[in-house]
Amino acid sequence: MKLGLIGLGKMGFSLAQNLLRGGHETVLYDVNPEPAKQLAEEGGQPAETIAQLAASLAKPRIVWIMVPAGEIVDKVLDELLPALEEGDIVIDGGNSHYKQSVARGARLGERGIRFLDSGTSGGVEGANQGGCFMVGGSKAAFETVEPIFRSIATENGYLYAGESGSGHYLKMIHNGIEYGMMQSIAEGFELLSKSEYGFDFEDVARVWANGSVIRGWLMELTERAFSKDPKLEGIRGIMKSSGEGKWTVETALELEASTPVIALSLLMRYRSLENDTFHGKVVAALRNEFGGHAVVRSE
Amino acid sequence: MKLGLIGLGKMGFSLAQNLLRGGHETVLYDVNPEPAKQLAEEGGQPAETIAQLAASLAKPRIVWIMVPAGEIVDKVLDELLPALEEGDIVIDGGNSHYKQSVARGARLGERGIRFLDSGTSGGVEGANQGGCFMVGGSKAAFETVEPIFRSIATENGYLYAGESGSGHYLKMIHNGIEYGMMQSIAEGFELLSKSEYGFDFEDVARVWANGSVIRGWLMELTERAFSKDPKLEGIRGIMKSSGEGKWTVETALELEASTPVIALSLLMRYRSLENDTFHGKVVAALRNEFGGHAVVRSE
Amino acid sequence: MKLGLIGLGKMGFSLAQNLLRGGHETVLYDVNPEPAKQLAEEGGQPAETIAQLAASLAKPRIVWIMVPAGEIVDKVLDELLPALEEGDIVIDGGNSHYKQSVARGARLGERGIRFLDSGTSGGVEGANQGGCFMVGGSKAAFETVEPIFRSIATENGYLYAGESGSGHYLKMIHNGIEYGMMQSIAEGFELLSKSEYGFDFEDVARVWANGSVIRGWLMELTERAFSKDPKLEGIRGIMKSSGEGKWTVETALELEASTPVIALSLLMRYRSLENDTFHGKVVAALRNEFGGHAVVRSE
Amino acid sequence: MKLGLIGLGKMGFSLAQNLLRGGHETVLYDVNPEPAKQLAEEGGQPAETIAQLAASLAKPRIVWIMVPAGEIVDKVLDELLPALEEGDIVIDGGNSHYKQSVARGARLGERGIRFLDSGTSGGVEGANQGGCFMVGGSKAAFETVEPIFRSIATENGYLYAGESGSGHYLKMIHNGIEYGMMQSIAEGFELLSKSEYGFDFEDVARVWANGSVIRGWLMELTERAFSKDPKLEGIRGIMKSSGEGKWTVETALELEASTPVIALSLLMRYRSLENDTFHGKVVAALRNEFGGHAVVRSE
Repeated sequence: MKLGLIGLGKMGFSLAQNLLRGGHETVLYDVNPEPAKQLAEEGGQPAETIAQLAASLAKPRIVWIMVPAGEIVDKVLDELLPALEEGDIVIDGGNSHYKQSVARGARLGERGIRFLDSGTSGGVEGANQGGCFMVGGSKAAFETVEPIFRSIATENGYLYAGESGSGHYLKMIHNGIEYGMMQSIAEGFELLSKSEYGFDFEDVARVWANGSVIRGWLMELTERAFSKDPKLEGIRGIMKSSGEGKWTVETALELEASTPVIALSLLMRYRSLENDTFHGKVVAALRNEFGGHAVVRSE
Repeated sequence: MKLGLIGLGKMGFSLAQNLLRGGHETVLYDVNPEPAKQLAEEGGQPAETIAQLAASLAKPRIVWIMVPAGEIVDKVLDELLPALEEGDIVIDGGNSHYKQSVARGARLGERGIRFLDSGTSGGVEGANQGGCFMVGGSKAAFETVEPIFRSIATENGYLYAGESGSGHYLKMIHNGIEYGMMQSIAEGFELLSKSEYGFDFEDVARVWANGSVIRGWLMELTERAFSKDPKLEGIRGIMKSSGEGKWTVETALELEASTPVIALSLLMRYRSLENDTFHGKVVAALRNEFGGHAVVRSE
Repeated sequence: MKLGLIGLGKMGFSLAQNLLRGGHETVLYDVNPEPAKQLAEEGGQPAETIAQLAASLAKPRIVWIMVPAGEIVDKVLDELLPALEEGDIVIDGGNSHYKQSVARGARLGERGIRFLDSGTSGGVEGANQGGCFMVGGSKAAFETVEPIFRSIATENGYLYAGESGSGHYLKMIHNGIEYGMMQSIAEGFELLSKSEYGFDFEDVARVWANGSVIRGWLMELTERAFSKDPKLEGIRGIMKSSGEGKWTVETALELEASTPVIALSLLMRYRSLENDTFHGKVVAALRNEFGGHAVVRSE
Repeated sequence: MKLGLIGLGKMGFSLAQNLLRGGHETVLYDVNPEPAKQLAEEGGQPAETIAQLAASLAKPRIVWIMVPAGEIVDKVLDELLPALEEGDIVIDGGNSHYKQSVARGARLGERGIRFLDSGTSGGVEGANQGGCFMVGGSKAAFETVEPIFRSIATENGYLYAGESGSGHYLKMIHNGIEYGMMQSIAEGFELLSKSEYGFDFEDVARVWANGSVIRGWLMELTERAFSKDPKLEGIRGIMKSSGEGKWTVETALELEASTPVIALSLLMRYRSLENDTFHGKVVAALRNEFGGHAVVRSE
């Protein structure tokens, strides 16, 4: 099919290669013109502006947006909408909050433009080689663009999830699960690193990635990480996060759902951002007050 | 190779089929004679007693024990040891506590018998079709029996892990990770079930099992479970446990390691065993005392 | 001093008694006229409408609002504001979200009316006998009404906390701590109830309330609760919540602060609202899938 | 009454002063002779050896042991027992594990010596000014020594808890609750420290210590700690622990009781002992593997 792709960062670039390999005519735009030029060598059609991108598409136009979640999506839409017409289809493949996707779907719907929120998983590799896509919004619009999803997804790797927002809702929850699974694996290796057995972590990750109950891509990536740095000595244990885990916990609070493991996985990430904690100081001070237990003084 | 296999429950039976399919001469014993008879049709050699099993093996004898963890292992060893000689090899493939395996290794070592503790993962299917094995104990003994592991494991699915106990240590930690991963997945689906979107859980599990970051065997099993009972209406949410998760948390306490997600996964299992909780009563009573908040009366 | 009091529920009624006992001329209003009539016997002056209440006060008018948090506060303000003038002081003594208090302070400030957000703690008893008050907003306004706080608070039991919203912020965090402390106490008694020692819980609560490190009002209330129902057999362990704990956790997420104990205290409350859980079903189903472990069937 | 007191560290010394003030004839022993000499000025009778201490008591001898938990208790008992006779009473007032107290009670019981396990709470101040005592063991023995407990405890501050071990069981659980309450308070102040309001922590602790729901000794100690160091800048947030919290969680595992808040309070203490974590490295490495997210490099 013919489509426009806005946003050629790590994920967008990989997706473009996937689309081009799949034979789709892909018009490309990014604020930085370099990646589009580079992709031109693989058959992509660079556009110099979003308007130009839209102009080069036939009706119903299909535009895939792959930019960082938040205000940037709205800025792209502001620029894009004047160039679109009733019946056109916009896909947000980024990590937008599902409530924003519902709002955007409504906004575009007022003008007869159909909006699909597509959660994308599988990392940079998946975007490039065959990922996982969870799509919410107009079912008819989905069916129009389904050949794109069939082509870029791995087998059984795409799903029409339901109403507007459902795709990004699934992606949000997926990431919440991911936080929990990663923390689980990480805690396991912490218990290996503290044991007296001198385990080879790469070997352990490899055997667990093959035939075990806990095999899966994350364990394969664990093996890969240890193959590069056997004790991860070059990495500090600072666990950043980009929002979906927090949204998942916020959603749990809204739904009054008890999700301790996902919540703790997030809170341990926050904990890891600090060298020292105020709560630790308070506990240490209290132990000193009632029991005379020595505190460790700051330098 | 030729070996004896003691214990033909779900796991042992499946392993026997795996061994027989792999061409190993397998002498079989279980307190219940039925499974051995059944396996005779696949080429297994039933033994009527443990002594008979041992007697039918050539030196160095190889005996794989696949019985429930705990005292039963010691009872089997009590019966088996008089029939063994220096140089023989005993493999405990069950879910024994690694400290018990260290003790058993020492006990057998005093008589020159070599003991291997083999953590086995992959479930009943893995035992049958190619599982994951983590082996601790004498390296020389391991090398002697390596053809067996190569044959019954999936590719890259076995590891000589190190000193006595290290195999079962790895299995214990593996299960701790498993608890955390299962709870993570389960909490995610809880957030789907409580959302207003009418998700088809089987569809969601399928798409997450294909191409996503969280793909893996547990997600495939999630898909399978939902394919049988789309909303799990036939199942109560009672999460039993068989010990390794508890051992993992006990080990974390011993090592003073912070493993909140594995710990909480275990504690939520305990919580699920109760219809009502005493801690809940206390909190409800306190809210009533200070704020006059109504309690829910017992019937 | 002379002031108006709007809202005569459990907390407002108790506060009115406290104010009247302290010699303050208190004009009283509630949608239900009964409590004001009742308080008239203790010297209160009932008003039939909010307008009448405002009309009976001298400038600068002082009005204390003690109604359930949320929209009701705004409705009261809608009705009250037309009757107020520049320089008047409105105190919200309820459990409002601090961000709403900031907004209300700004709204009233536009008309020159000064708004104080007063977190109130100490339960119904405290409101009546001497509670704890944390006050945010205009310092000058606070100084004007300080005699009221001095009179209704226990010794050292009131604080001018700072800018608008700071009083309700402190109350929110206070409640988060309260959730954690209550859950801590409750878990302790759970471990008593499950032990083989046949503890008398009232006796234990009493000894812990006297001389121990964990003595305090919550332990005294625990003793009182057990004195009424020695094993809390009449109470179900359903732990409801009224919002501040959730706000505390939401605030923790906003601030990226790791507060596992407060978060878990909240999540256990949500857990207690359910007889069965979907996450439990998923874990049980998975255990069945990989290990053949029996599930408990629904009836 | 007349009694011997073995162990004159912080707690033992304070208790001795309490006993002497209460008019009890107290024979004192510590490996370090200094504190006994010092206490002689307050009326104590120093003994040079444990044997001498025992010899100076009349039958039934009463000996209070106040030494660090663990092997030291057994060493003291080894030295003490030869000097005791049937009917004598030994009180272990330290933080011994209740199972050890059960064993010691049985050991002494074989010789007809009665053993009481007394959990002591209230910190150094409580030991000195009137603490909280939970006593397990022979009821008759307890009644014999009850005047001592009545004298050293605050009003309502002692309890005969039941069979051997029950006193130390209560103390263990008390400390588990204490961990949870301290962590709750500490998390609350963390949320104050991260807020934009410039709270004065001492002021906040003071107002919360007076009239609030969460008032109690720990909040008073919080106020005291902030009065000495307003932002705790001199203290590092390293939260050590001395065992009872760990025992509480171990007990929870044994009883299959869900105690998430106490467990997390302990695990956060362990977390605070580390500058960096291996689990953090693993999560950071995984995020890099699948999403190309930058890691923070070690220096």
